[in-house]
Amino acid sequence: MTPNQSPNLSFSTAEYEARIAKTRAAMQAKEIDVLIVTDPANMAWLTGYEGWSFYVHQAVILGPDGPPIWWGRAMDALGAKRTVFMGHDHIHGYDDSYVQNPEKHPMEDLSMLLAQHGWHSKNIGLELDNYYFTAAAYLSLVETLPLARVINANGLVNWQRSVKSETEITYLRRAAKIVEKMHKTIRERAEPGVRKNDLVADIYHAGITGADGHWGDYPSIVPLAPSGADATAPHLTWDDSPLEKGEATFFEIAGVHRRYHAPQSRTLFLGEPPAKYRKAENAVLEAVSAGMAQAKPGNFCEDIANAFNATLNRLGFEKDSRAGYSIGLSYPPDWGERTFSLRKGDRTVLEPGMVFHFMPALWLDDGGIEITEPVLITKTGAENLCNTPAELAVKL
Amino acid sequence: MTPNQSPNLSFSTAEYEARIAKTRAAMQAKEIDVLIVTDPANMAWLTGYEGWSFYVHQAVILGPDGPPIWWGRAMDALGAKRTVFMGHDHIHGYDDSYVQNPEKHPMEDLSMLLAQHGWHSKNIGLELDNYYFTAAAYLSLVETLPLARVINANGLVNWQRSVKSETEITYLRRAAKIVEKMHKTIRERAEPGVRKNDLVADIYHAGITGADGHWGDYPSIVPLAPSGADATAPHLTWDDSPLEKGEATFFEIAGVHRRYHAPQSRTLFLGEPPAKYRKAENAVLEAVSAGMAQAKPGNFCEDIANAFNATLNRLGFEKDSRAGYSIGLSYPPDWGERTFSLRKGDRTVLEPGMVFHFMPALWLDDGGIEITEPVLITKTGAENLCNTPAELAVKL
Repeated sequence: MTPNQSPNLSFSTAEYEARIAKTRAAMQAKEIDVLIVTDPANMAWLTGYEGWSFYVHQAVILGPDGPPIWWGRAMDALGAKRTVFMGHDHIHGYDDSYVQNPEKHPMEDLSMLLAQHGWHSKNIGLELDNYYFTAAAYLSLVETLPLARVINANGLVNWQRSVKSETEITYLRRAAKIVEKMHKTIRERAEPGVRKNDLVADIYHAGITGADGHWGDYPSIVPLAPSGADATAPHLTWDDSPLEKGEATFFEIAGVHRRYHAPQSRTLFLGEPPAKYRKAENAVLEAVSAGMAQAKPGNFCEDIANAFNATLNRLGFEKDSRAGYSIGLSYPPDWGERTFSLRKGDRTVLEPGMVFHFMPALWLDDGGIEITEPVLITKTGAENLCNTPAELAVKL
Repeated sequence: MTPNQSPNLSFSTAEYEARIAKTRAAMQAKEIDVLIVTDPANMAWLTGYEGWSFYVHQAVILGPDGPPIWWGRAMDALGAKRTVFMGHDHIHGYDDSYVQNPEKHPMEDLSMLLAQHGWHSKNIGLELDNYYFTAAAYLSLVETLPLARVINANGLVNWQRSVKSETEITYLRRAAKIVEKMHKTIRERAEPGVRKNDLVADIYHAGITGADGHWGDYPSIVPLAPSGADATAPHLTWDDSPLEKGEATFFEIAGVHRRYHAPQSRTLFLGEPPAKYRKAENAVLEAVSAGMAQAKPGNFCEDIANAFNATLNRLGFEKDSRAGYSIGLSYPPDWGERTFSLRKGDRTVLEPGMVFHFMPALWLDDGGIEITEPVLITKTGAENLCNTPAELAVKL
């Protein structure tokens, strides 16, 4: 705690310090002396740092002891002063001439900072497969830190985030209420002839105004809402095509509060759904309950996937891709935590406080069905954080 | 052109082929045989590929001849079939077990694909400092392509995009109309007591519904709208703090159509602005016109910045950061093209068809002033794509 600490913290200093202690234990287990954290969600989780600045190189440096150091573009150091729990003496901005300049790389400045702390010859952990930690950033560090030993620390901080604190669960519950409201808005506004972009505008408006007096933050993935044949592709974004009678549209969206995401998907059919959509709907719902029955402390992640897939196959459907993934705090381009997945072979043991997106999407040859839920592992089993009606939304 | 070509192209096949020819010439100049394009904007510009799938590894491969190859996650190959100009025989999806799996890396699959084409021992161009091309992706390629020679192709495709085609300029003009409408919405809705998130929800709604019958796409940067002391930091996002009388708020937003961005910023003051805000406003406006006078074919980018900064300094203000950058087609996290910058030392020659965000933001000790414009270089000079009133928006 310092006098010039930020006024805008989402968590207590004690919680940040507990996260740092947990992370340092994981560093020690991997013989990492100094951790360079470039994942924006990991940076925020460790320090509170907030801001849309991840399009330039930035990092949080966690040394062997003491508070972490925020490092980034000089103009964003001002944002760090407004958001991190550390004192201003732990905020370091680099000169703007480093920004998107092929002549020099910001990591040269980071190496100088590490040297100032006598860390240039230590075992340095890097998030090697993280968005925003580019090949050039790696090559610059390796060149300017010849005495350092690089250790792959990819996912190290992400894994510390798996089990959520009470406050984190509170934010996730608020996000869940927001996504419920967004789906309610879709059921109210979607009609044949409505332009897709107009419906998406209403979805954004519902999400960002928030719910139950809690404000909505921006989602790490924009609303995905493809119709008809476009819904055979999972990640297309919108245009101005009107909704049409006889078409299915799936809505993959998230409610967000203070960067915590509650993703939930539903499928809407305008007109009477063909029998095969009803068949797919029933298969998904039955497979989901089979999976949910396995969602409890002590079980493996794959237990949920295996129960889900066995039921789905018995009912005549196949799904090759994973059925879910860990969620929580996130920044674009992904609202997943990139740790455990609900798929065969993932032997991560479920614990109370883990939260995942149970994502049993089915893509049919002429469309898709998504009925997905944000799920919290409790002491005794699992809790669906939302109460949105599960079935296919049908408007005749 | 192929029978199974996508129905959703934003440009003619001829335009994609011209872009590819231009890019191949630049490859030849750098002795690159095979270019691996991982920047989502470069992927879209070369092939038409569209979709929110850049959170997994994907690329467009441009070999010595023939159409490019789209490579990505199997489920996104379906999106490629809906959006790229190439035939389906030039779309390659990798197995879902590669996704976010520490046991193996998707680039192993890409290397096999290159080998199948006999390209494993060629000179291979990589976008080394691009978001989404991670250190691990680089290390995996280097390990699995021992016979290849890696050449840094960072920015190679970006630079081909600098001069816009007629159709691109048409999309940018539509985006400019959209951002004008967004600023009009701000002037109408902003009042003391309005929660920031509610105002941002209205800004999103105005942007995505679009203008003049043209639909709005999502911006690559969310609306930035900090007030008061938070406005000393350029990249903070919103919460539910109410707008307050006596405070300045700047709105850094973009209108977007088919991924083409027209960013424009304005500053709003609730109540009578203090003299120093008026002084800063006048300085910025005078410095902007000095800069615009230098914005013409044949001049250097730095000519604009130098004229701008000289005027700003004469009027008693300083700006350390660059005064602008190239814009056009983009994906999160940045709406800049990451080629030329308006700053001292950038000797890029201005040409008709170049478009940039003239971004003369001033951050004062207790707030910020942003009055910025999307600008098109014409045959004879420069054109501001928007007609939004430039001055400080004041609501008493």
